[in-house]
Amino acid sequence: KGELLFIAGPCLIENRAMAVEIAGELRRISRQEGAKFIFKGSYRKANRSSGGSFTGIGDREALEILADIRESYGMPVLTDVHESAEVALAARYVDVLQIPAFLSRQTELLVAAGESGKAVNIKKGQFMAPEDMAFAAAKVAGTGNSRIMLTERGSSFGYHNLVVDFRAFPKMASTGYPVLYDATHSLQLPASGNGVSGGEREFMMPLARAAVAAGVDGLFFEVHPSPEHAHSDAATQVRLDQFASVVKELMQLCRCMQSIHSL
Amino acid sequence: KGELLFIAGPCLIENRAMAVEIAGELRRISRQEGAKFIFKGSYRKANRSSGGSFTGIGDREALEILADIRESYGMPVLTDVHESAEVALAARYVDVLQIPAFLSRQTELLVAAGESGKAVNIKKGQFMAPEDMAFAAAKVAGTGNSRIMLTERGSSFGYHNLVVDFRAFPKMASTGYPVLYDATHSLQLPASGNGVSGGEREFMMPLARAAVAAGVDGLFFEVHPSPEHAHSDAATQVRLDQFASVVKELMQLCRCMQSIHSL
Amino acid sequence: KGELLFIAGPCLIENRAMAVEIAGELRRISRQEGAKFIFKGSYRKANRSSGGSFTGIGDREALEILADIRESYGMPVLTDVHESAEVALAARYVDVLQIPAFLSRQTELLVAAGESGKAVNIKKGQFMAPEDMAFAAAKVAGTGNSRIMLTERGSSFGYHNLVVDFRAFPKMASTGYPVLYDATHSLQLPASGNGVSGGEREFMMPLARAAVAAGVDGLFFEVHPSPEHAHSDAATQVRLDQFASVVKELMQLCRCMQSIHSL
Amino acid sequence: KGELLFIAGPCLIENRAMAVEIAGELRRISRQEGAKFIFKGSYRKANRSSGGSFTGIGDREALEILADIRESYGMPVLTDVHESAEVALAARYVDVLQIPAFLSRQTELLVAAGESGKAVNIKKGQFMAPEDMAFAAAKVAGTGNSRIMLTERGSSFGYHNLVVDFRAFPKMASTGYPVLYDATHSLQLPASGNGVSGGEREFMMPLARAAVAAGVDGLFFEVHPSPEHAHSDAATQVRLDQFASVVKELMQLCRCMQSIHSL
Repeated sequence: KGELLFIAGPCLIENRAMAVEIAGELRRISRQEGAKFIFKGSYRKANRSSGGSFTGIGDREALEILADIRESYGMPVLTDVHESAEVALAARYVDVLQIPAFLSRQTELLVAAGESGKAVNIKKGQFMAPEDMAFAAAKVAGTGNSRIMLTERGSSFGYHNLVVDFRAFPKMASTGYPVLYDATHSLQLPASGNGVSGGEREFMMPLARAAVAAGVDGLFFEVHPSPEHAHSDAATQVRLDQFASVVKELMQLCRCMQSIHSL
Repeated sequence: KGELLFIAGPCLIENRAMAVEIAGELRRISRQEGAKFIFKGSYRKANRSSGGSFTGIGDREALEILADIRESYGMPVLTDVHESAEVALAARYVDVLQIPAFLSRQTELLVAAGESGKAVNIKKGQFMAPEDMAFAAAKVAGTGNSRIMLTERGSSFGYHNLVVDFRAFPKMASTGYPVLYDATHSLQLPASGNGVSGGEREFMMPLARAAVAAGVDGLFFEVHPSPEHAHSDAATQVRLDQFASVVKELMQLCRCMQSIHSL
Repeated sequence: KGELLFIAGPCLIENRAMAVEIAGELRRISRQEGAKFIFKGSYRKANRSSGGSFTGIGDREALEILADIRESYGMPVLTDVHESAEVALAARYVDVLQIPAFLSRQTELLVAAGESGKAVNIKKGQFMAPEDMAFAAAKVAGTGNSRIMLTERGSSFGYHNLVVDFRAFPKMASTGYPVLYDATHSLQLPASGNGVSGGEREFMMPLARAAVAAGVDGLFFEVHPSPEHAHSDAATQVRLDQFASVVKELMQLCRCMQSIHSL
Repeated sequence: KGELLFIAGPCLIENRAMAVEIAGELRRISRQEGAKFIFKGSYRKANRSSGGSFTGIGDREALEILADIRESYGMPVLTDVHESAEVALAARYVDVLQIPAFLSRQTELLVAAGESGKAVNIKKGQFMAPEDMAFAAAKVAGTGNSRIMLTERGSSFGYHNLVVDFRAFPKMASTGYPVLYDATHSLQLPASGNGVSGGEREFMMPLARAAVAAGVDGLFFEVHPSPEHAHSDAATQVRLDQFASVVKELMQLCRCMQSIHSL
């Protein structure tokens, strides 16, 4: 096991200033803690619970902000794609294409992402058993692209609730691909009122620590300068000025785990 | 409450001969039982568990078969769409566009389907609470298109299993849109072995009867001349030569229910 | 398939007057609709969510009320037992001993109930797969007592929610024992606030109709003259003066089903 | 947060020699690793899936073995009770009475255990939300006994499967009582074939590490000299000669967590 990878950034690229503010802080944390970072930002939200929600500032403008962050801050950037037709455009700007959990069975999207040659992060569907992620990964790998990551973000558990099954980490790791834990989306309470997803931020640290101890290769966090004003996922994004201490603690725990296992 | 609507046809348009054979039998049953039918057939499977599965004979060829059935047999036809770019083409050939369950949160697809002016059948996501279908329907209705149907096909229940929550029928009916029960897909055991979904056909009749008694407006069945040779969903499709008795019994039960409630 | 059996009565024997009022109305309905009835009443509540709840008027007093109803109204009576030491006493007063769902794996209780020689109604544990009820039944049958009934009252579905899996009816029927549907407890929302279980009474009729159509042998209802004043299960008990129409409709539906299947 | 508590021992006291062998090894590990231990052993199995399974060597004989271990090895001992009538006897021999998960709503059992004055370990029902354990604990605390521990052993997740929801640890900790993780029973696959529960031992270490990182106060393990020959729970008990390394690693991780949090 090597180091922890962090995928972090805002749920949605709301504007250039906020994206740049976050990227600057992530680079600072990355250097201070010796952690690898990928900057994430959605350029469009395609699956909001409710049709009236904010969905973005425009695809090209958001993608150009991502490309600028990549160049200015020296961090790889990631965005998510929702239909195969989006892949070609997005792939021009980013290093990692992400397949949203609801879309983890869409063969054409997985194949298009694979064919782009970019790394592909597949989120496990809330309706999918962890071992079945091997089939999703195989659709990407079938294009000759083996730069694949698998991310757990919770499984359906009754209505309006998700549960993180920690057996999913070793099960998905048996594919041979890196396995990440999405520490913010997994705390969502889907569409729990008025079509807006709520969340339980208070469980973030216990579950993130547990995921590191269970052996994940990386973690995924949505961060925002002021989550209470975020256009989306306000209930679960981490406040940017608290994120350094989150990373610091998880890196310490990861080093502990390594020292225990190297004894 | 009026009559029962049946949406029926093969999982996938495998070739013209089988589609025509099924359409002929459905028309015969429709006339004999006085039941309304919509012929369904997928022109492409976009979300097979495993990448190696058969996905279709070509979009246009399959869509033309659907259009021919519509003309020759006087039945409305339905097909499912997976990405917004497919909508324009499919809408030229069919009467009803269907949104697959995994895609029931994809705003752009729902909006594109709504804007086509065609009727839209939205399957409830396996990860979605029934009351949240109101938000999916609102995305379609927001385009000015209120020709909407909602279909229950089971909710995630642990791994590799679905459960039909019968509370979903009255909950979804409270939207005011017709509610259907998908009597074959709801018996699937998702991706339960080697990436191929299994199923429990033996529970089809008890659950279909129960759905009629619970007050659904219609039922959805996949039928095939020889399910054991079907290219997809072999475990759950109904054998074509047994389908007349299925329809007959459910129509009788529906009339019973009407006579009880009119007393 | 024969006729429908109804097990009905108050959650708890709160006092003689209410028990007698209910028994009188049940006998009236029984005669009017030609339905078989078993009068049910708990003499003690052993598993309230919260310790402060009312648990009964005294065991012997409640059991004697049950025995009096049996004699005066000519109906068999049922009560539930929670520990093996209670069986001998309860068995002196009632015709049917019921094993609560949480206790459906307790071997000693099942064996003691079986050895009493009384009929035994086993509720399926919320944590148990329907096919595993065969093992619970076998514990009773192992005592030489084959007068067994199995009752579905919902399965755990996330937290604070139950789902009725209609596949459970044919699965449990394959044991050869009569299968009942508990139409009121299955609508509970367990301990959903302040340690008191809520419920969704509005779904009772759709689900009860569905269960009859799915082929159950009987139904279980808790009824109360004024549910809003009940000491327990206030959210789901049926109002006594509405129960005749419930029975009437389900009997009509049962006769419909029989006439369809005898064609 | 103090040190980790380990509750460990065989599923069932099968005979004196095996109990003594295990106790000796646990004391050795306890001294070597500086860990607190409670010896656990059931004197009777009351809820086997199937009636034909082995249920014990006799209550008094098994309880006397427990008392001897307590005296000879200087470790507190724990056993589980299933009906209130068992409490008085068991309480004479052991330090901790354990309430099985299926019985965590049985008021009389909880009250009897509380009134014994012994410490009480309540396992969370597979059907119960973690926050509702506050009601179970209150039933014990209502007797004036506040020596209570709460143990997570998994929640129902579909049929024949359990999931450990790691949010349960902080939720139950908010009661103020110590929270433990049952690292072996939580991996059971309930009654998954022929009425015998299976299990997934390969996930034990990742989940146990994760629970320590999530902040549990202790862990519960069933250990056996040769699990493949155990009379019960053969699929999940830990092999005795491998248990020292399990404890060692979890103690190291616990010390890591403490040093991180004390910085």
